[in-house]
Amino acid sequence: MQREGLAAYIVPSTDPHASEYMASHWTEVCWLTSFTGEAGTALVTLDKALLWTDSRYYLQAGIQLEGTTVSLMRESDIDCPKIEDWLIDNYKSQITVGVNPEMWSVDSYKKLSDKLSEAGIGLKSVDLIRPLWTDGRPAIPTASFYEFDTRYAGESLQSKLARIRTKMTEKHADAMVVSALDEIAWLLNIRGNDVEYNPVVISYLVVEQQKCTLFVLPEKITREVTAYLSANGVEFRGYEEVFSYLRYLSGTILYDGAKVNEALYEAISDEAKKVNCKSPILVAKSHKNDIELAGIRRAMEQDAVALTRFFRWLESDDTRAKMADSKLTEWDLMEQLREFRLMGKRFVEESFGTIAGYRGNGAIVHYAATKETADFVYPQDMLLLDSGGQYLDGTTDITRTVWLGGEIPAQAKRDYTYVLKGHLMLGHIRWPRGTRGNQLDALAKQYMWQAGITYGHGTGHGVGHFLSCHEGPQNIRTDMNPTVLEPGQVCSDEPGIYRTGKWGIRTENLVAVTPVESTPEATTEDEWLTWETLTLFPYDTTLIDFELLTPQERQWINDYHAEVYRRVSPLLNPDEAEWLKEKCKAI
Amino acid sequence: MQREGLAAYIVPSTDPHASEYMASHWTEVCWLTSFTGEAGTALVTLDKALLWTDSRYYLQAGIQLEGTTVSLMRESDIDCPKIEDWLIDNYKSQITVGVNPEMWSVDSYKKLSDKLSEAGIGLKSVDLIRPLWTDGRPAIPTASFYEFDTRYAGESLQSKLARIRTKMTEKHADAMVVSALDEIAWLLNIRGNDVEYNPVVISYLVVEQQKCTLFVLPEKITREVTAYLSANGVEFRGYEEVFSYLRYLSGTILYDGAKVNEALYEAISDEAKKVNCKSPILVAKSHKNDIELAGIRRAMEQDAVALTRFFRWLESDDTRAKMADSKLTEWDLMEQLREFRLMGKRFVEESFGTIAGYRGNGAIVHYAATKETADFVYPQDMLLLDSGGQYLDGTTDITRTVWLGGEIPAQAKRDYTYVLKGHLMLGHIRWPRGTRGNQLDALAKQYMWQAGITYGHGTGHGVGHFLSCHEGPQNIRTDMNPTVLEPGQVCSDEPGIYRTGKWGIRTENLVAVTPVESTPEATTEDEWLTWETLTLFPYDTTLIDFELLTPQERQWINDYHAEVYRRVSPLLNPDEAEWLKEKCKAI
Repeated sequence: MQREGLAAYIVPSTDPHASEYMASHWTEVCWLTSFTGEAGTALVTLDKALLWTDSRYYLQAGIQLEGTTVSLMRESDIDCPKIEDWLIDNYKSQITVGVNPEMWSVDSYKKLSDKLSEAGIGLKSVDLIRPLWTDGRPAIPTASFYEFDTRYAGESLQSKLARIRTKMTEKHADAMVVSALDEIAWLLNIRGNDVEYNPVVISYLVVEQQKCTLFVLPEKITREVTAYLSANGVEFRGYEEVFSYLRYLSGTILYDGAKVNEALYEAISDEAKKVNCKSPILVAKSHKNDIELAGIRRAMEQDAVALTRFFRWLESDDTRAKMADSKLTEWDLMEQLREFRLMGKRFVEESFGTIAGYRGNGAIVHYAATKETADFVYPQDMLLLDSGGQYLDGTTDITRTVWLGGEIPAQAKRDYTYVLKGHLMLGHIRWPRGTRGNQLDALAKQYMWQAGITYGHGTGHGVGHFLSCHEGPQNIRTDMNPTVLEPGQVCSDEPGIYRTGKWGIRTENLVAVTPVESTPEATTEDEWLTWETLTLFPYDTTLIDFELLTPQERQWINDYHAEVYRRVSPLLNPDEAEWLKEKCKAI
Repeated sequence: MQREGLAAYIVPSTDPHASEYMASHWTEVCWLTSFTGEAGTALVTLDKALLWTDSRYYLQAGIQLEGTTVSLMRESDIDCPKIEDWLIDNYKSQITVGVNPEMWSVDSYKKLSDKLSEAGIGLKSVDLIRPLWTDGRPAIPTASFYEFDTRYAGESLQSKLARIRTKMTEKHADAMVVSALDEIAWLLNIRGNDVEYNPVVISYLVVEQQKCTLFVLPEKITREVTAYLSANGVEFRGYEEVFSYLRYLSGTILYDGAKVNEALYEAISDEAKKVNCKSPILVAKSHKNDIELAGIRRAMEQDAVALTRFFRWLESDDTRAKMADSKLTEWDLMEQLREFRLMGKRFVEESFGTIAGYRGNGAIVHYAATKETADFVYPQDMLLLDSGGQYLDGTTDITRTVWLGGEIPAQAKRDYTYVLKGHLMLGHIRWPRGTRGNQLDALAKQYMWQAGITYGHGTGHGVGHFLSCHEGPQNIRTDMNPTVLEPGQVCSDEPGIYRTGKWGIRTENLVAVTPVESTPEATTEDEWLTWETLTLFPYDTTLIDFELLTPQERQWINDYHAEVYRRVSPLLNPDEAEWLKEKCKAI
């Protein structure tokens, strides 16, 4: 730091691709501080080291930082300053702060730079970790990747590339630089094994009108994938060669400042015209084609089989006896569910770490039990289970909350029913084309709002096709996202109620935007859209407060359960089918 | 134009204060083209004259422009270019376009200027109309204005001014220029008679930390108002002196670019720092104090008496006989309603032109019958009536749709009930503080959306206190307005369904944001808000399709009708009270 003239250095927990899940090569915060949580930012000064993390990780960070010189900054606390403000408060004079520009998106780098420069603090792009962390640093994954068959993807690389080049032409662009891993995987129809939960390939991509270049470690390239990509005119270069390649590009170059990292941006020649715009790949990827949608429906059937087996196992006398004997933890449930999913056709891996939140743990946002910390589960009280799978056909994500036994408190039934009513209303709404997700958000909240209850997380996120479980640009949140919902977009529908120390209740299906076929009472020429429910698994009807249910809602539940049984039962053995029939019987 | 070097000149239909209703002095479009509609923009070139107006005025403009050289541009048609685009398309070479900067807000002027300059077209500030329109131009209103008593306003000028100066200090501002007439009237507690429907005073205001100057025509100033304002430290200058006054102001000067006109902006010295920000007066004005809210409740009672008398008259045998004889038009209904309102306590004038839309006329947005064009009303079919009053206590705005006789089509009942259900749900929703109006909009639409029906207008607008019937910053619309709803803000709640040629149905109450007193089931520390219904008049229950109504909605209607009867009946004579009792009886 002294050699570089730096008074401070910031290390965020991210990777050069703005990924949600990242390879261990980039766990710089952990290397520096010993903290292993997913969200944390380290700040090193000439005489101090600090770690910012949120309330989910206070306990863990406290233990892991013990005996180090790193101080914990509790960023969920109201009086905790942000890193920028801490720097401004602690350094009145002119200093320079260093960051590795690969770890910051162009937009976040600019925001930081603007804030610091207002206070007279400079920002310098420099990677201090790479020369220091040589011993034992995990390599960038070298696993091979593969062609993702068009019979799953539904559209060839050639066709996608032509569409994206047309979008580039509309913006008078000569080239586009892409660093989001799911965008690269979608565009080239490739998948890999570099990161847990997301079948992406660590790489950069530069699309030009006559060329397309994938920057990837040579060890990852197989003969098959070379043949596939070469036949489609995609060239290869080394992963880090992207920086020198960008230096020689000219003309107009598109980049998505929310995703593309600052180092790439700085690498582009000053003679080129750099245009920041929302990635056209992000938008195209969100509109699932008919083959992708058909695949997701098949994946949902496979997922339903696994869930049927899991919940039947959970209810079995044997399992309940083990529970009563303090022999089953949340972790065991997560493992067991994974076992059942592994038996599914075309199942690849889980789409995220299962959340199994028993009793009060269900009320902890992003609760993640580990083998060591998991609580025992007993044959009573509430269990929240949020899980999903990556299938070659598509990605699933489902939450069901169930009552394991004992008398159900009236408040638990009311909470469950408010959540269910909101989930059903949002899942059955029709709307005129042109409507945004944030316009629909309150439909899922209105019933719990009347009781003075709300929740802090989003109501719905976009979902990829055998890709990221969280994708944009659409979502259903309070935020003012200007994206309108379009046919083929997949979203989750997952309202929840969380009572600290008591229970968490969330009900989640995946749904796809689909045109309404007929509107006999229409007064205008609007096109109408609605949701197709993709997820197939019954709700726990024992938790419903029937006083709060309308005949329409009852009908929606019965219709859904009949459809679940119709689609899933042929894939089950007779005992399993019998169990599902009981769960799906009309209420 | 030639002397000024102009190839074109644009004349919009507005005034220097961005007013919704304007004095006839500013009807420049009418003087230029003969067109008298409220929305139209004229463009004069060296060899052409064109008038842009929307579909509401196509017929009227066609007639009024006949025999002139002015061509009609139908701006609601999809292929009709905007004025800027028309200029860009028709003048490839470098030209200069003129506008009167008093008629453009800073923001709209900048938008026009940016668009034209991209195409190499210059914009010049010049008033060509003033030297030409000397003969018969109506004067700027010289009517006197008056102090608006604190017993109605609820807060003194001194107190308001201190609050606004604190806001100015927060923004390091030395002065603020104000041109919105309702903001000036609110801040100074003055009212006038310059404009129909809005009791404002045509003026400008400059607030400084130690001074406050009202720029107004000297003829308007009475001894009483001089005494009142002088005692409060407000100085007077001539209306047009604002321009020279601004030239000598220095320091930091706030202006709201959405309201303040370009001429004022250009008048400010270049040495001053000009800061564009949403007017703190706009925000403060929207939060009604307890005295204002109490006044609005009284105004609603007076309005309810007038409406009771009107609808009782409308149902009377005598009136129905006249209708059957083709002796009553929509215009007659508007006049009769005004007669009843005039009898009310503290009634000053109507708050906007009544909309009486019979049968298909109800489906015409902004339908405004004139004495000459009004349709006859018969004792059958649907009537939409949207009207309001300016009382010293407050401003009212109510829409009721009623069935005048004959068998009610099932579709009419369904439409009416979808509207009513949405109106009730929006009007009874509770929400966590921090929620925006656009998050609530779909609550009013969800039932009609399920039937493939929607409407194009806003669901709710802010309402002033004995001021503009439409005010910001809050509203309930699909637009991404970032304003959150705060206690004391008044909004309309007015969903509607419009079937061309058949009927228009709208149900509108005014509601005020109010804290929820108790939330026993709350899971978080959120503050909760809801609406207090201000408007007092029963819905037409004969139009309800009871199949579609939930027990909760039935309860809401019965509770509301009981409250209406309780509050209004003491103000009626026994026959009127008996009529209202029947209308308010439980369903």
